Amino acid sequence: MRVLGVDPGLTRCGVGIVDGGTGRQVSYVGVHVVRTPSDLDLADRLRQVADAMDEWLETYRPDAVAIERVFSQQNVRTAMGTAQASGVVALSAARRSLPVGFHTPSEVKAAVTGSGRADKQQVTTMVTRLLQLQERPKPADAADALALAVCHLWREPMRARLAEAERRAADLAKAHKARLSAARAQRTGAASRPGRGGTG
Amino acid sequence: MRVLGVDPGLTRCGVGIVDGGTGRQVSYVGVHVVRTPSDLDLADRLRQVADAMDEWLETYRPDAVAIERVFSQQNVRTAMGTAQASGVVALSAARRSLPVGFHTPSEVKAAVTGSGRADKQQVTTMVTRLLQLQERPKPADAADALALAVCHLWREPMRARLAEAERRAADLAKAHKARLSAARAQRTGAASRPGRGGTG
Repeated sequence: MRVLGVDPGLTRCGVGIVDGGTGRQVSYVGVHVVRTPSDLDLADRLRQVADAMDEWLETYRPDAVAIERVFSQQNVRTAMGTAQASGVVALSAARRSLPVGFHTPSEVKAAVTGSGRADKQQVTTMVTRLLQLQERPKPADAADALALAVCHLWREPMRARLAEAERRAADLAKAHKARLSAARAQRTGAASRPGRGGTG
Repeated sequence: MRVLGVDPGLTRCGVGIVDGGTGRQVSYVGVHVVRTPSDLDLADRLRQVADAMDEWLETYRPDAVAIERVFSQQNVRTAMGTAQASGVVALSAARRSLPVGFHTPSEVKAAVTGSGRADKQQVTTMVTRLLQLQERPKPADAADALALAVCHLWREPMRARLAEAERRAADLAKAHKARLSAARAQRTGAASRPGRGGTG
């Protein structure tokens, strides 16, 4: 399974491609950072991000796309630009019918370092080690994008198992409810039959 | 000039199309609201918004698109979804090389009611009156989308004049600076010539 991870942004948008193997085995495929000029119109910056995304999806043909879930940051204006960029990235994936997973920064940190409070340095160190890279990926957006892909590869089987378990539990609950109401109907029927026009 | 105004959102995305005439004359063309199911994947909801947007642009062929500028709202999750929707809407416009204007809610309110603090009812009332509608547009997102289009039509000439004035002022300042430094060079040249190897 190949995952394309995206750390969305207008100034810098990181993309990292990672292949998953058996168990927790992961291998590096590629990493890029797209930058759009801040003096360009917002709509044109979004178009540049979307065009780059389309190109990456075409080149790497991933099976899934993992995007960082944006929360409010200190700078509201930046957070909005980041959210808009993540929107066009998700759209590119959806238009190719690729599954899209959103992961929060702390989920990504917890997945690759074991701690949701790890700093950027620790994330970069773990990504470099896990993917057996010769150099630390730069800038941080590139390392984050790779971490997102790794996080998705490791979380997805768990998420799928959980969804499957929930589906089964719901099916069992439904079957149980159906049996209960069937039993109740039988009891009511049995009780009302002798008197004709009883409580039924 | 025809403007397509968009009040972006995932649950409800309002779109209003308004034609501008001479002066402040405006006329109603159409209004729609796209709704995407909340149990659908975020990426698929964004695709539905983008597909609807593409359809509207194809049908109405506007000269410009006006989008509400999203600021942080009470609910961060909602604000992020709204920002993502506004991103894909801006992308659809940019991919058709249409100019995109972002206007804040208070700019829109000020433009149509005269007060940046007007409530939704007042905006709807003014939109109904300005566009001579038989009925008040519903829901509020539809009225907001029409108000955005009107706001863009009225603000755009002002914005263009301001940009032109700023460009001229910058040109004048540049010419003035060039004249000043030419005069200074001449003075320095005149002063240094007699002594040869003076302060120049």
